Amino acid sequence: MAIYLSRYVTGDAVLWGVVSPAGITALEGHYATTAELLENGRDDWMAAVLRPPTHQGPAVSMLSPVTTPCRVLCQGANFRQHAIDSGMDPDHRAFNLFFDKTDASVTGPHTPVTRPAHVQLLDHEIELALVIGKAITEPVTITEESLREYVVALTIANDLSARDVQLPQGQYLKGKSYRGFCPLGPVLAVLDDGDYDRLDDLVLRLHVNGDLRQTDTTAHFVYRPAESLTELSAFSDMAVGDVLLTGTPHGTAAKSPPALVRRLATALLPEHVLWKLFIRRNLNGRFLRPGDTVTATIRSSDGALDLGEQRTPIVAPH
Amino acid sequence: MAIYLSRYVTGDAVLWGVVSPAGITALEGHYATTAELLENGRDDWMAAVLRPPTHQGPAVSMLSPVTTPCRVLCQGANFRQHAIDSGMDPDHRAFNLFFDKTDASVTGPHTPVTRPAHVQLLDHEIELALVIGKAITEPVTITEESLREYVVALTIANDLSARDVQLPQGQYLKGKSYRGFCPLGPVLAVLDDGDYDRLDDLVLRLHVNGDLRQTDTTAHFVYRPAESLTELSAFSDMAVGDVLLTGTPHGTAAKSPPALVRRLATALLPEHVLWKLFIRRNLNGRFLRPGDTVTATIRSSDGALDLGEQRTPIVAPH
Repeated sequence: MAIYLSRYVTGDAVLWGVVSPAGITALEGHYATTAELLENGRDDWMAAVLRPPTHQGPAVSMLSPVTTPCRVLCQGANFRQHAIDSGMDPDHRAFNLFFDKTDASVTGPHTPVTRPAHVQLLDHEIELALVIGKAITEPVTITEESLREYVVALTIANDLSARDVQLPQGQYLKGKSYRGFCPLGPVLAVLDDGDYDRLDDLVLRLHVNGDLRQTDTTAHFVYRPAESLTELSAFSDMAVGDVLLTGTPHGTAAKSPPALVRRLATALLPEHVLWKLFIRRNLNGRFLRPGDTVTATIRSSDGALDLGEQRTPIVAPH
Repeated sequence: MAIYLSRYVTGDAVLWGVVSPAGITALEGHYATTAELLENGRDDWMAAVLRPPTHQGPAVSMLSPVTTPCRVLCQGANFRQHAIDSGMDPDHRAFNLFFDKTDASVTGPHTPVTRPAHVQLLDHEIELALVIGKAITEPVTITEESLREYVVALTIANDLSARDVQLPQGQYLKGKSYRGFCPLGPVLAVLDDGDYDRLDDLVLRLHVNGDLRQTDTTAHFVYRPAESLTELSAFSDMAVGDVLLTGTPHGTAAKSPPALVRRLATALLPEHVLWKLFIRRNLNGRFLRPGDTVTATIRSSDGALDLGEQRTPIVAPH
């Protein structure tokens, strides 16, 4: 069975604890980083499981269970239906689309996120985040078997995206990296041997103000974790505690026009006109606004692996 | 006057030294990272300047003067002529184009770089790298005056790019981050107060096998360092020792077709056909091949600031 660890503030202290339905049991050790916890904390958390809770959950303020600095690598259009909606054929994909977010975007699982003043099209993207447990420093071939060494934990990510920056500017980095644009948590789910079979059977669900917007299952991944990390190792190192976000299901607020219309418009319209049309077409009421609350859950269909609920209020700049 | 520091291997030791025309004078301290050197090494290097050389330059093996892990942020199309060649109007740019390379790409200034087996269109991009001396952890407004705190050193970068990965795949990260794709050095030029005026007057030159391919001056930047770092701070942290690559001059091997032709082709041709045409059109003999040697220099027009010569042999996979 997975162990669920959280990182939180209580009083002046930043602690790690084991989460159970009864509350949070604090670990005895202090671990400055997720890497230290994963490398040195196992005996500590196995002992904590046996003790009664130290805190009731609501009494503490949750932090990202992935500490910074860290790498946040990402895959684009990695669910079959989302790829189709983005104008791609998931059965004839030419490449695994990688990009990254900066770690300035990382924030806690319940922390309010500011929609920047210049952003109108703030969109949500629930993603399964794989947490690295063995460093990658050279090209490696990762198999379904060795994946258990490289991916030791999971958490929920929201790859928040300013579509009116990301898409007109072409490169995704800026529009996906504003401060707060990567809520992570609430828990670091450290996997047990039996959990790896559930990696293909995790159901993602994202609601905005209680309305279901995104749902799909990891059975519909286009590129799976082992092959993705294998390719990633050709162009990126990964340290213990770094994360790979594995793509979002369909149901984001941004809607692409049909592929041919999009391509013709791109060809024939000046760039600034295209941009204005894109923003006007997309001011459809589904983008996130101050006052909205985004909730995200990921769990296996049998309920045995449950990454908890991330809950993000969207707020205006103050 | 700037101080020129290099990082190198001699025997089993990794050392830092002050570079002068007479050779390299080793520092007494050991600094595991560029950040440690910049934060603690000043007295050490000021003392080394007064001692005779420890080594002749050719007797040592040079390493990147920027240690990893580090962030490698980048600007695209930031020289006026290169922006024009890329189909943009530098006087009416809508945005400062940011992307990044992974630090897996960082390598030494004289280290052979392997052209990966699947890459045909390997291209060069000489760039001025700004080395950060004061951490950025929140949005900040950086002025010409405070730039002196945030940018404390310069070095030469080559933003090597697999065009046949970068361009068809859209997001630049992968095609610009293969291992070895970011030679840095040979020196970390720690700036003196008087050098900041020369930031506008640095001449970049890149040769392939002795033929001049790229040259321009930083007077032709579209977005200057202070405004670029100000915007960057909205979406990225920077630690001491991280780098910002400020864009490359015109003269890369890849040639864009005229903008309208490119946009029509993008609209009307299936993606895999477009990709094949792009590669065929670009097999023009100017891309880098095993056996080529790339040399890159950056110096002020008065010669007072000189970042040395980077020299990169391109080799086949072994």
